[in-house]
Amino acid sequence: MPSRFMLANAIRALSMDAVQKANSGHPGAPMGMADIAEVLWNDHLKHNPANPTWQDRDRFVLSNGHGSMLLYSLLHLTGYDLTTDDLKQFRQLHSRTPGHPELGYTPGVETTTGPLGQGLANAVGMAIAERTLASQYNRPDHTIVDHRTWCFVGDGCLMEGISHEACSLAGTLGLGKLTVIYDDNGISIDGDVKGWFTDDTAKRFEAYGWHVAADVDGHDPAQIDQAIELAKRQDDRPSLIICKTVIGFGAPNKQGTEATHGAALGDDEVAAARERLDWPHPAFHVPDDIYAGWNAIDKGSQREADWQARFARYSETFPSEARELQRRWNGELPGDLDGAQVIEQAQRACESLASRKASLQTLNRLAPRLPELLGGSADLAPSNLTFWDGAEAISPTSPAGNYLHYGVREFAMGAIMNGISMHGGFIPYGATFLTFMEYMHNAVRMAALAKRQVVFVYTHDSIGLGEDGPTHQPVEQLNALRVTPNLATWRPCDATETAAAWLAALKRQDGPTALVLSRQTLAGQRRSTEQVAHIERGGYVLRDCQDFPDLILIATGSEVQLAMQSADALAAKGRRVRVVSMPCTAMFDQQDVDYRESVLPSHIRKRIAIEAAHADYWHKYVGLDGRVIGMTGYGESAPAPDLFKHFGFTVERVVAQAEALLD
Amino acid sequence: MPSRFMLANAIRALSMDAVQKANSGHPGAPMGMADIAEVLWNDHLKHNPANPTWQDRDRFVLSNGHGSMLLYSLLHLTGYDLTTDDLKQFRQLHSRTPGHPELGYTPGVETTTGPLGQGLANAVGMAIAERTLASQYNRPDHTIVDHRTWCFVGDGCLMEGISHEACSLAGTLGLGKLTVIYDDNGISIDGDVKGWFTDDTAKRFEAYGWHVAADVDGHDPAQIDQAIELAKRQDDRPSLIICKTVIGFGAPNKQGTEATHGAALGDDEVAAARERLDWPHPAFHVPDDIYAGWNAIDKGSQREADWQARFARYSETFPSEARELQRRWNGELPGDLDGAQVIEQAQRACESLASRKASLQTLNRLAPRLPELLGGSADLAPSNLTFWDGAEAISPTSPAGNYLHYGVREFAMGAIMNGISMHGGFIPYGATFLTFMEYMHNAVRMAALAKRQVVFVYTHDSIGLGEDGPTHQPVEQLNALRVTPNLATWRPCDATETAAAWLAALKRQDGPTALVLSRQTLAGQRRSTEQVAHIERGGYVLRDCQDFPDLILIATGSEVQLAMQSADALAAKGRRVRVVSMPCTAMFDQQDVDYRESVLPSHIRKRIAIEAAHADYWHKYVGLDGRVIGMTGYGESAPAPDLFKHFGFTVERVVAQAEALLD
Repeated sequence: MPSRFMLANAIRALSMDAVQKANSGHPGAPMGMADIAEVLWNDHLKHNPANPTWQDRDRFVLSNGHGSMLLYSLLHLTGYDLTTDDLKQFRQLHSRTPGHPELGYTPGVETTTGPLGQGLANAVGMAIAERTLASQYNRPDHTIVDHRTWCFVGDGCLMEGISHEACSLAGTLGLGKLTVIYDDNGISIDGDVKGWFTDDTAKRFEAYGWHVAADVDGHDPAQIDQAIELAKRQDDRPSLIICKTVIGFGAPNKQGTEATHGAALGDDEVAAARERLDWPHPAFHVPDDIYAGWNAIDKGSQREADWQARFARYSETFPSEARELQRRWNGELPGDLDGAQVIEQAQRACESLASRKASLQTLNRLAPRLPELLGGSADLAPSNLTFWDGAEAISPTSPAGNYLHYGVREFAMGAIMNGISMHGGFIPYGATFLTFMEYMHNAVRMAALAKRQVVFVYTHDSIGLGEDGPTHQPVEQLNALRVTPNLATWRPCDATETAAAWLAALKRQDGPTALVLSRQTLAGQRRSTEQVAHIERGGYVLRDCQDFPDLILIATGSEVQLAMQSADALAAKGRRVRVVSMPCTAMFDQQDVDYRESVLPSHIRKRIAIEAAHADYWHKYVGLDGRVIGMTGYGESAPAPDLFKHFGFTVERVVAQAEALLD
Repeated sequence: MPSRFMLANAIRALSMDAVQKANSGHPGAPMGMADIAEVLWNDHLKHNPANPTWQDRDRFVLSNGHGSMLLYSLLHLTGYDLTTDDLKQFRQLHSRTPGHPELGYTPGVETTTGPLGQGLANAVGMAIAERTLASQYNRPDHTIVDHRTWCFVGDGCLMEGISHEACSLAGTLGLGKLTVIYDDNGISIDGDVKGWFTDDTAKRFEAYGWHVAADVDGHDPAQIDQAIELAKRQDDRPSLIICKTVIGFGAPNKQGTEATHGAALGDDEVAAARERLDWPHPAFHVPDDIYAGWNAIDKGSQREADWQARFARYSETFPSEARELQRRWNGELPGDLDGAQVIEQAQRACESLASRKASLQTLNRLAPRLPELLGGSADLAPSNLTFWDGAEAISPTSPAGNYLHYGVREFAMGAIMNGISMHGGFIPYGATFLTFMEYMHNAVRMAALAKRQVVFVYTHDSIGLGEDGPTHQPVEQLNALRVTPNLATWRPCDATETAAAWLAALKRQDGPTALVLSRQTLAGQRRSTEQVAHIERGGYVLRDCQDFPDLILIATGSEVQLAMQSADALAAKGRRVRVVSMPCTAMFDQQDVDYRESVLPSHIRKRIAIEAAHADYWHKYVGLDGRVIGMTGYGESAPAPDLFKHFGFTVERVVAQAEALLD
């Protein structure tokens, strides 16, 4: 049996070889964390390389995602479907080994990491998901959900603010099965961190209520193992293991310096490292005894088989729970969820109410059948209206709940939701004011990039929030959301569209949805059955005229009622006006050309888009000949009606613009 | 002389009255922090109500900006130009008392706050600015710059991740003149914070190296005073004073609950509070003896007069230092800064180099004359190329430097830069990768909203960064920046445009600038003198044809070279093609219609925009008849040349699209 050091050296060698071949990448972290990874993966991690999606596997997150070759090496060595040829394609187009770990590209990669700190928050989300799912489904003598979450972090992750948000909340929630291992190598890109990072990290995490193992030698397997064992015994608090390491360990001339962080070591240094590490094998070559020392297929398959047997017994004793759990794992909505009926119900009532209230109404109608919904808000529950009648807060003493009080932690909320979604078994939704989307912006992007079903609820969606003023009034955020690839952004105009938007979010499994909702009351709109059915297409004719229209008004959300009133006023003057409600441009753009032409015929160039948000976006639909009634500057502090008037969202202005365009 | 309690009650009464009159606002924080504010403002704060811009005043930041009535009450009571009528206009259109404090609306308001945690980071920036300016200009026996920064924060500020980033850095820098007072009232919007915020905050800040006074009774003036005195004696570390308070103190039925946080108390409760507080006066009425107890005009004027006398002596002894300091305070560029010459120099050389390198080259040419430049990067100095030849890192032992190693703390960097700018005397610039703009997005918005001269440097601006892959490759960020009101976003195409963009940023005093720069080499473009002069207009004709063009290619940054090559290829086929370089759409949009028509004549509708960023933005310039060659999805991990080919940024594709459009 090879030594632990030699097993770890396989990671070092593969990592420096792959980076060298690509002439691009980050050898420092994999070489520095190789010993830690070896102990964790060989002696503690519960996984089955033959089935990377086994539901009860431990989750492993490399939050310092630039060290991707560490993870790829581990997956390759332990027996995942990742070959030496894959490693040789590191950082090449269409390879399974991209520069940073990308969910969906590589078997065994649990989350997309690279943007620092977010992997850590994903891990917190996975640990929440595990504990809540376990609390909901485990039964005495039937422990079906029982796995740990492990997360590697670097200095960068711990400097990022999101580490505070996520770890503070993890401490409050007492996530005993979460273990974070900190690669305390004292080096970041600018050099020795002493000039900019002097936290007493152990003390900081103790202040969050964590168990901390400080001063562990990250190159001593016995110390690492002991610290992990101790962490596993913490039932009611998360653990941080602080490992002192040498970045680029083994590269004799560069180790311990930022020179190993983000560039190939160079042929000479790679050769020198081979000598230092007593690793005489050619590039990418791993001897059989080393492979044998790493191979986890048999052990992993046996573990999964044991679990499958247990799950079979559980299914016999608790058939409905087992079916429901399986359904949740599969990401299937319940068969008896009658979404169309909920939309129709809203249309029949045709109430005038704020879309945030319509959202709560929809939740109250749908959520009782959806135990997979895991809601929350960043300390704005009474404003976002996300705490529905059946919501129950998750806490250390009631982990089986379905609602998280995230605290004033928007960014962590986003990344934790992503982690919950990645874990599986849940559809997370979380809310804040639309403006503060900016606090969590990159987590929204990561949800979209990683194709996660996450629902971002954004209320107080325009100057219509009134007196809180420009710091709180969104202007440009809707545009930012709409140009985020693979994000579906809905801004419904009334209760019916709000229900339809929620249904679209629940059905959309391959990406996130943003629901953009008003603080203020919106008029209910009348619709035919066909119009109701067209909402899900993202844009449709809400009001039409005889023959072809002279003018098309396009609007969303709170401005649809303005467009409708303006169309009435123009019709009274003999104008032929169509109103298009466009709650989700992304969905509309996906419709076939015939449908899009039926809504916005190419030859009708007299178009006015109306939205109390930045005007620029709408040129896409109105072109150079149309007009946009929107915002171009910031809002003001005043009652909402004063603001709509001040910024020109009035029937008079729409009519005037329309007539100027028509004449 | 009225009691301290009665002085504080004036704040409570004015705050609840103003919120009640507006029927909107946040009475809880002002009523809870009134006693603390009374001690600080009456006994410690150095300020002159008659001159809110006195350079050596203490800075006061209300980071929990929703408590704006606390600040407005203080300004009114101590003698600033803010009348009772102003207070009665709380939260009304065009008033001087908007819902949250807005810089520029109200004399004495130092920063715009409301988005939680950012005021705290602004305060850190102000304290950095004070210490650095003091170190640069004070001389033995001539202490010209010597003031403190005070900051109030609430639970929300301390839950936000930015509080970690900013306070960790403040601890490392040892900012002894920064004192933060925490309104530890145990309540946030969702209720008792115990369910989501259980940090040992004292321990957390000790871990950052701060002095902490814990368990101060926030309603006991003696305890508050003692804690402030102790904080003032900390020379080499910032102080946190944790005051236990009762939110809404004085409202007998609602105090201590979230009901006082964000809504008017109601007439009955206001009346009951008057009784409880022994404050029998009518709404908005403050007795003369209370006004007398608060009035700070005489004391403030005397303090400023003393300082003016000292500054006069300094000016005699150190005339050039005094002139330079005065110039910096006034925000004037040095008279001998020959920006045009630097742009011409770049044009003469016409080098091909990455625009991040051109940025460094520009800094090396301009910065030696600009002691007000205070640079930095969020731990990416070697990648962003922001550490110019004369850069010197600021540290506790060398506070007179001109460069901050911010660490991996993008959001704090943004908000600290805003604070440095608000302090005055500096033009801050700070850098990260363009994608990670999203980590600091709301700080960029706050710079624009508060009209601060801040330069955001964003390198690695597209798929052109290559192998790091989609997590690092910006797509939608340029669009998000361009729709941020009052932000000037430049994406230069070569060294000349980069120099021009830097000059524009230096000249732009009423708002921030984003410089969007490439990692990869860009071809230098030849230009006439007139073309060079037109760069500052944001868009200009870089290549034209005989007669009117059949087609206009519009491009920015790295895609300008592609547009030029494509134009050559099309010209070879007999096509008349114009190329417009559009480095800054915001500047172009501000040009008069004649100029804009001369660049983009309305009748030429065959237009193709080319940019390796999200396509949607460019419909504004190409309309419904043009085309956009851009990105609509995420990037991939691969060498940059492979990616440009993969995503269709090739001469062949541009030519094919052009011919399809023309035929």
